[in-house]
Amino acid sequence: MKFSDKISRCGQSPMRKFHPYAVAAAAAGKKIYHLNIGQPDIRTPQALFDAIHSFSDPVLAYAPSPGRPELIDAICAYYDRIGVPLAPEHVLITTGGSEALQIAANCILDDGDEIIIPEPFYPNYNTYVTISGASIHPMHTTPESGYFFADRARLEACITPNTRAILITNPGNPTGTCLTAEQERMILEVAVEHDLFLIADEVYREFTYEGEPLHSFAQLGFGEDHLILIDSVSKRFSACGARIGCLISRNSAFIAHALKLCQARLSAATLDQIAATALYSVGPEYFDSVREEYKRRRNTVVRKLREIPGVVCQCPRGAFYMMASLPVDDAESFQKWLLESFDDHGDTVMFSAGEPFYATPGKGKNEIRIAYVLNETDLARAMDLLRLGIERYNNR
Amino acid sequence: MKFSDKISRCGQSPMRKFHPYAVAAAAAGKKIYHLNIGQPDIRTPQALFDAIHSFSDPVLAYAPSPGRPELIDAICAYYDRIGVPLAPEHVLITTGGSEALQIAANCILDDGDEIIIPEPFYPNYNTYVTISGASIHPMHTTPESGYFFADRARLEACITPNTRAILITNPGNPTGTCLTAEQERMILEVAVEHDLFLIADEVYREFTYEGEPLHSFAQLGFGEDHLILIDSVSKRFSACGARIGCLISRNSAFIAHALKLCQARLSAATLDQIAATALYSVGPEYFDSVREEYKRRRNTVVRKLREIPGVVCQCPRGAFYMMASLPVDDAESFQKWLLESFDDHGDTVMFSAGEPFYATPGKGKNEIRIAYVLNETDLARAMDLLRLGIERYNNR
Repeated sequence: MKFSDKISRCGQSPMRKFHPYAVAAAAAGKKIYHLNIGQPDIRTPQALFDAIHSFSDPVLAYAPSPGRPELIDAICAYYDRIGVPLAPEHVLITTGGSEALQIAANCILDDGDEIIIPEPFYPNYNTYVTISGASIHPMHTTPESGYFFADRARLEACITPNTRAILITNPGNPTGTCLTAEQERMILEVAVEHDLFLIADEVYREFTYEGEPLHSFAQLGFGEDHLILIDSVSKRFSACGARIGCLISRNSAFIAHALKLCQARLSAATLDQIAATALYSVGPEYFDSVREEYKRRRNTVVRKLREIPGVVCQCPRGAFYMMASLPVDDAESFQKWLLESFDDHGDTVMFSAGEPFYATPGKGKNEIRIAYVLNETDLARAMDLLRLGIERYNNR
Repeated sequence: MKFSDKISRCGQSPMRKFHPYAVAAAAAGKKIYHLNIGQPDIRTPQALFDAIHSFSDPVLAYAPSPGRPELIDAICAYYDRIGVPLAPEHVLITTGGSEALQIAANCILDDGDEIIIPEPFYPNYNTYVTISGASIHPMHTTPESGYFFADRARLEACITPNTRAILITNPGNPTGTCLTAEQERMILEVAVEHDLFLIADEVYREFTYEGEPLHSFAQLGFGEDHLILIDSVSKRFSACGARIGCLISRNSAFIAHALKLCQARLSAATLDQIAATALYSVGPEYFDSVREEYKRRRNTVVRKLREIPGVVCQCPRGAFYMMASLPVDDAESFQKWLLESFDDHGDTVMFSAGEPFYATPGKGKNEIRIAYVLNETDLARAMDLLRLGIERYNNR
């Protein structure tokens, strides 16, 4: 049986690739410290559960295709508080940020088109771009420069006649880099000058650790026809399993096209939209305490990483990920070895190998992504395991 | 700004197209009998709400990308009861039957490919086929023949070098046609002989009114590499808003490709999967009472339709839709007129105009789809309004 060329070009999720080795290691009695997935351990606000528990409609019916008006209003109020005035018709509720990305890709990209994305990037971007028939034109960055990409000349050098859009994750997954308002302005100016869409994935907006105010490309006040925001409740409210996100744009033609795809899948889940609406009632004290917790974790990871000889990393400013280059030949082989052949008092550690975060062949081979989603004690232990593992791996 | 050719070829949902006219009619004080959408009024089983209300995890976390094992096991047990033995690795949980369709289309279809679908068909098929870059090769049927399509010679005549798959909805939306086991065998044989995928959308399986046992192409016991089932809890348990469906196939390469897309969107909603698992504990007495209710409704609609001079329709055997041809020049104009210019004691009626259910240009112009999702009294009133409307429209 023949499958589509598009799906044949897509790869397995790198975050899930080592799952069988992890299962085998766990079955052999090893304790694994998981730094490989972005599932926060932070409690989901009680408001979500209260909303779910008080649902009493007799029929669990479809929601409107663009989303429940109450949720759209709550999102508009949130954006209003950060200086981004929106009307309800600028917002479409989606099944997670993932569906928002998929819809945006389908509305913009045809076979042979290109989208510029700084690498390393969130690997699922590759799937959505590939399944739309297009390809990623990577803008390469390095661990030595802290994965810096906000350079106009280098960005413009990536533009070809096939370029349709630029995709920026800010704060960055997997790098934790954060743009300044001036850097955002430059990138949006490039998009406007070259008539490109700018897709801004801002799902980690609340997770910044250097006292920055809440950033959005939508605060810049120009280029509104070019800008598409991807947002989600998953990380903001530690509610990944709700699968509620949204697409935001003032480009009414874009919204009209995107709505066709929203209509085709009828609606996002009704109960989860009700739950997400309740989440937007959570006050700033929630974010303050979560931010402090992640900042402590980040500081622990960076301090411990810097004690490991040969590791190259910069201190990330946001999200809850960071990339680092390790003094090993190949991070995938190292990860496999950590699961199969290493333990310290029965413990081992798991991260995401870096190569699938790059589109440029051969890049990221000795890099890893760390998701600092464990408590500080566990993180410190995980970093000790990483240090020990590197020593023994290189002396094996 | 340029949008993708694919999205530009997609249309708005025909079921939503008349929404603005309906809003205006309601604002003008008219009562509208809605026969235009497939949202059942049947109560969702209490088991769903009990499961939701007892959820007590502290974090609403991602589910596994292929789906929660408990839900997959419940689906396997359901299929086992209807004579289809499945292993968990044959099932992927999706965000509604809609996502299952989208994933299947993306795994099979490239630009320029064709998929054979009997017309009239569920219009959202068109969106998912078009966004994959392919096109529908319609197999035309008529109201006079009861929308019969199970003809080997006519099916084979639709096959071209670009054909990749056949898509069958059984029981049929929008026609209510039901295949016999022999007809299913013939269609699957054609798929096997011509090396095509057969996508069987069986989400209305429980809704048959002539005493048939529960049918599935998967009961035939051959062609397993070719067969992909689309299923969902939406209609089966009147739980449309849960957005939980599944893809089922014994073709392990297909499942491996589909899993890439499941991984890219991380997971289907966690709470809704828990709720859907509980739904599968509902016993056969639930389906018996729902089936009897819809059968009474179907009989009412067909009886009343046959009293209208010039209407052509056959009695549908399944699902909760039927198509009929009306003695009007254009069903879209007639629908608009019913909302804008007609009422009987303040009441009017809404259906889906037939043309968007066809891929062949110009077909279905005087046909409508009726969703008999109202109680019998309301259905009888709606049919009286339709009769009155036709008389006045043709004498206006």
